[in-house]
Order: sequence, then C-alpha cells, then structure tokens
Amino acid sequence: MTRQIQVQLGERSYAVSVGAGLLAELGPAVAALSAARQAVVVSDSNVAALYGARAADSLRRAGLGTELLTFPAGEANKTLATCSNLYDSLFALRPAMDRRTVLVALGGGVTGDITGFVAATALRGLRFVQCPTTLLAAVDASVGGKTGVDHPAGKNLIGAFHQPSAVLVDVDLLKTLSPAEFAGGLAECVKHAVIGGSGLGSTGFQPVQAQALPLNRQYQPPPAQVENLCHQSLMDFLETRREAVLARDPECLTELIARNVAIKAAVVSADERESGQREHLNFGHTIGHATENLVGYGAISHGQAVSLGMVAACRLAVARGLLDAASAGRVEKLLVALGLPVRWPGLSAAALWEIMRHDKKARGGKVRMVLPVRLGEVASFEDITEQAVAGAVDCLRVQE
Amino acid sequence: MTRQIQVQLGERSYAVSVGAGLLAELGPAVAALSAARQAVVVSDSNVAALYGARAADSLRRAGLGTELLTFPAGEANKTLATCSNLYDSLFALRPAMDRRTVLVALGGGVTGDITGFVAATALRGLRFVQCPTTLLAAVDASVGGKTGVDHPAGKNLIGAFHQPSAVLVDVDLLKTLSPAEFAGGLAECVKHAVIGGSGLGSTGFQPVQAQALPLNRQYQPPPAQVENLCHQSLMDFLETRREAVLARDPECLTELIARNVAIKAAVVSADERESGQREHLNFGHTIGHATENLVGYGAISHGQAVSLGMVAACRLAVARGLLDAASAGRVEKLLVALGLPVRWPGLSAAALWEIMRHDKKARGGKVRMVLPVRLGEVASFEDITEQAVAGAVDCLRVQE
Repeated sequence: MTRQIQVQLGERSYAVSVGAGLLAELGPAVAALSAARQAVVVSDSNVAALYGARAADSLRRAGLGTELLTFPAGEANKTLATCSNLYDSLFALRPAMDRRTVLVALGGGVTGDITGFVAATALRGLRFVQCPTTLLAAVDASVGGKTGVDHPAGKNLIGAFHQPSAVLVDVDLLKTLSPAEFAGGLAECVKHAVIGGSGLGSTGFQPVQAQALPLNRQYQPPPAQVENLCHQSLMDFLETRREAVLARDPECLTELIARNVAIKAAVVSADERESGQREHLNFGHTIGHATENLVGYGAISHGQAVSLGMVAACRLAVARGLLDAASAGRVEKLLVALGLPVRWPGLSAAALWEIMRHDKKARGGKVRMVLPVRLGEVASFEDITEQAVAGAVDCLRVQE
Repeated sequence: MTRQIQVQLGERSYAVSVGAGLLAELGPAVAALSAARQAVVVSDSNVAALYGARAADSLRRAGLGTELLTFPAGEANKTLATCSNLYDSLFALRPAMDRRTVLVALGGGVTGDITGFVAATALRGLRFVQCPTTLLAAVDASVGGKTGVDHPAGKNLIGAFHQPSAVLVDVDLLKTLSPAEFAGGLAECVKHAVIGGSGLGSTGFQPVQAQALPLNRQYQPPPAQVENLCHQSLMDFLETRREAVLARDPECLTELIARNVAIKAAVVSADERESGQREHLNFGHTIGHATENLVGYGAISHGQAVSLGMVAACRLAVARGLLDAASAGRVEKLLVALGLPVRWPGLSAAALWEIMRHDKKARGGKVRMVLPVRLGEVASFEDITEQAVAGAVDCLRVQE
C-alpha cells in the first residue's frame, strides 16, 4: 500500500508518497520532473554506504545522469562550510550540471536541510527531491520547505524557504534506525497529535490512484482495519497501535507517516512562510530547543528535548487554566509508552529562560509559546513570563 | 523633482524612488515598513567612509535602532566568506536583531548582491532596502531581486531571488563616481534602450504624488522639457541629452534612471524568476560576461565588457539578417559618445566560445543569446554557433 498526500502551495505544490519499497521509484519520480536530465544525490557518509548505490541505480535506470556527493555525518557538520564544499563539488560538474539539475536529499533531517539550502542557492534555485531515511525527517523536516544550516550563534540561523518538488518516504529504510533515533521521530508524531487532530478531512489525504501518479504503482484498496483507523484521532491511533508502531510494521508505519504528513501539509499549505498558523508546529519546541541547547547537542536528542518541551508546555497550559490535567497526563503517558523522557533532573529554569529570550522566533526579546487548549488544538501566546516557565520546568525536575 | 516607479510583483511589489537628496529620506522609508524597529546598514569600506554616517543619521532620526557593518571593497570580496563574516556580525546583534530587522544595502552592485543574499538567508529571510551609490547599481542590480555571490567556478553561482522592500536612488551620490564607473552604468542604459524602447506606457512610470508616498516630498510638476522627453525613446534621450548626462546634471540623471528602472521593472514584473522575458536583460551579456572572464576582472570593467558584448550581438544580428546595419552603427556610435569601448584587439573567439558554453545560463552546453531585431525589441536565440560568434568577435578585434 502506498499513500500519497498533496501539499497545496499553488505553483509550488508537490506530492508526498509513503510506502514500502519506494526507493526503487526514485528514478521514475525524478525523471517525471519537467526537463530533468541530471540528478545529484546528496547524502552523509553513513546513509550513502547503506542506500547510496540503490538510489543511484534507480536514477540511472530511469536514464538520468547521476552523481553521488557525500559529506561527513552529524549535526556538527550542518554548517556553511559543508555547503561550501558541496557547491565546489556541484559546480565541478558543469556544464552538464545546470538549472535543470535535480538534487536528491537522501538521509535524515540534517541532509534534507543542507541539501535543500544548497538547492535554494545554487544557480539561484535548483529543484530537489526529499528521500528521508529517518522517521523524524519523514514526518517533519522533509515536508514544508524549511532549509538551512546552523551558525555558532544558533541553529538554523542561515536558511531559506524552498519547497521540494517531491517527497518519497520508503518505510523500509526506517528499519535500520536505532531505537533512540526512531523515538525521536515519535516525539514529532505526538506533537502532531496534540496540534492537529486526525490529519484527515480537507488535507488531500487519500489512497494512491495508480493512473493519476508519476509513481506507477498498482492501486490497492486499504485493508478494512486501516479504513477504520481513519476515523480515529492520531492520538488514539498512537495509543492503540503502539506495539505495531514500535515493531515498525510497514503497513502501520505507512499509515502513521501519512497521517502526520497530512497534518503538517495542512498547516504548511495554510501558512507557507510562518507568519501565522505554521507557528503551531513549534508546540514543544520553545522549551525543547532551549533544553537541547542547555543540556548540549549530543547529550540529549532533539526528540528527547521536544518530548520534555511538550510536557512543560502542557503543564504550563494546565497552570494557565487552558488545558485539563487529564489531557496533559494522557500526553505524558503516551510519551513514556513510546520510550521518550518526561523528566530531566537538574534543568535550570533561569538558564532556559535566558536561551528562550534569544530564540530566533523571539521578537525583540519577548518569548512566545504555543500551548494546547485541548488535544487536537493549540494557540500562540506571547505573554509568557519567566515565572510560568519556571513553574513548568519544575515539573520536569521532580520525579513523581 | 523625485520620480517613483512601481515594480509590480503582487505581494512582493515595491517602489523605486529616484531624485536628489534622497539619502536623507532613508530613515522615514525604512520606518514606514511594517514593524521595522532596527536597521542594519551594510556597506563596503569605501562607501561607508563617504556616506555611512549620513545614512545612519537618517535612520536614527527616524527612531530606528541602527548599526553599520562594513566589508572590504571590491568584487574579489563578493564571496561566501564575506557573507559568513556578515552573518557573524549580524547574529552578534541578537536578540535586538530579529526577523523584523531591515538590512540596508548602501553601495554599488557588489554591496547590493551580498546584502540581498544575506537578507535572503539570515533567519530564512529579512527585508532589505537598496540604496545604490553607482549608476550601474541604480539602473540595473538594485531592481529585480537577483542576489548572490561569486564562486571560483563562476560569477553569481550562489544566490537567491529576493526582492527588496524599497529602492532609494539619491542621484547626488553619483557625483563621486569615477568617469569609468559612471560609463559602466551607461552601458546598461544603452542595453535598456535597445531592448525596451521608451520605458513608458504600462510600466507604472509616473511623477511622485506627495500624498500617496512614504517619502514625504512635495509634489512638483516636471518641467516642460522633461515632459516632452517622455515621448522620446530612451535611445533618442541618450543621444540628445548626452552632454547633460555626462555632466551628471541631477534633473537629467533622475529622468535617465527613472526611464531605465521603468524598463527593467516592466521586464521583471512580467517574469520575476527568469523563465522567459527576463532573459532579454542578458542582451550584450553572453559575450560580455565571457569577455570579462577572459580579459580578467580588474583588467576590464563590467560596463566595458557589456559594451563590447552589445557591439558583437548587434553585429551577429546583422549577419543573421535580423537587424539593419544602420541601427547597429547607431548603437556603436552612442557607445563611443558615452566613453565606452567598441573594439578590443586580441580577443580570442575560440576562448570566448569555450567560456560561453560553461555559462550559468547555458543549457547542457548549448549557447543562448539575446539579439536585437530592431532598436527597442530583442528576442532569444538558442541556435548560436561557434562560427557566428567568431564572425562577430572578429569585428571587435579590427580597428576600422
């Protein structure tokens, strides 16, 4: 079963395809882009060793000139210096490399962000295709067009909005993820469950119709069980299908990722450049980013930090009288069940606050936060005080 | 007299204001942008010394937090490394520096291109205002949203389309230009005359209406002489007003720049991202860029190279039977009268051809050129042969 979700952005619209074995469809998908003749796969040293050859094979069999560029793995290499090296390698391919060249980001969020930024800025804009190989990238970074690299002063400070031309999620590639990497993606799934409800409705979420797609796959009606699940909220889905999710059952992962992408696509379609509703995707990320920064990249994963950020945001919402305590408890329980932390002794609220004031999204030093008003609905608040944050962070430090 | 031209690009539309003494209006113009609280002026070491303090004064008097960042002057510094330094300085200003911060490019084309690119990529996009201090930047680079930096493999290979929020051309600043720098701008004026006729009509070219403008200037009806000139073609204008242009008469410069901006604005409005008509702005630039590359940046100016490129393109058009020889002669005569070269002994056609095949705009090694079909109209051709280029370049080498 392959699922396809349309990200509706006018002339920048694109399809996200999710299913097992889709890496083999990469070549046909790129070849279907207008005037595409050359593909350049960008991947980190780890992922290139695992999947680089298969990606390149698919592209070559589709008749595309194909090159594979690699960079050293790790968030520490998400820098302008890495981009500079990629520009060197890319421009060394000219004149075959020109404005019709398509970049392929094969990897996790770091690879997608770097490749997207190079695509946004090489020859003033190349097309690119996202092939996420982590759950986190599949449900989050690969959709929405945020690209960029880190700067010593902060994460993602250098970047651009540049939408991919297509996104292909092969759920089979997620089998090689470590449990910690997988859990990192699940944190973003919980985030979507809190902000966006079921991820169905008017978001273009629908089973693949073979005749309408560049990916030439046979249409198969979804099994009855999946049909029923469509009427569940994503929260219910995560709770009831937890075991199949953690076992990385391909059908279950396809359904999970498609639901998450549908929620993210709806938000992005409504607000491409983050002037309004897109801010909702920051739920859990204000305190989460600050925690990641304070504890230290490497010492805590992004997913773990977001998990803590969501717990704190829910507690803060309860303290403000926005959310009932039972819902906050339900979120915490689900996070624990998915292997994510909900406590982190020793966090300093004062240090977190100082970092939050310097966040890229802060305005003139004023801290904004996205808080849940019920499960499936959030809102932005810009009157967040240091005391409120301190109260919420206290909950993270205490073992109950 | 101030002239204002609207660049029509939907929600990315902006006004170009041209007149004497406009640098004093920089502060009010930036303060008029929504939620602007901080301005960061970017300038090279030469221009900062001449005009940096006046720009900063105007911004401060308008109530804006104001910073001035400089980089070493010269096209050799139009690099990713310079951007990297600017990011460092910019992000050191946080948290006051945020997404509402407005960058001001105070300088020539290099400054505009660098500042625009930093604006396009810092925090995924800041607004910026162009204050061109050269004729070349005023009539060309400051309008249209092309930003970027050079790479060892070629000019402007790294960049983005990012439109300014406003353009302010103070013609008084052009007094300090060397004759060679000034002539460089005139080459682009001749280009506009060949591609675009009068620059009037449906382009939004109109005198300033005081009540409708953020720049709070008194409306003055244009003098009768200028009114009459509006019915002339830009070609006629350049021929008949040559002396006043070369004497840099402020009224004449205002009229000249406004006409050029109107032509460029019309082209950019029709084709923002260079998928069609915008290619016309490359008239004279295919052979021109190759000549600049071959002779060596520094040994020939961009304007001189474009002058030679236009002569060669006209000759090529005559050889193809597209253009009459008298029109080609008229273009050459005007270029000479404006102090621009029309001959360059020793140019190698084979070497130029090799460079042209590798041009950023070449497609799969195929050379495209924009050729005049009459004065005021050009078209694109992609069947340009090495022999045709060799024949045209022969004309450049021979002293007639």
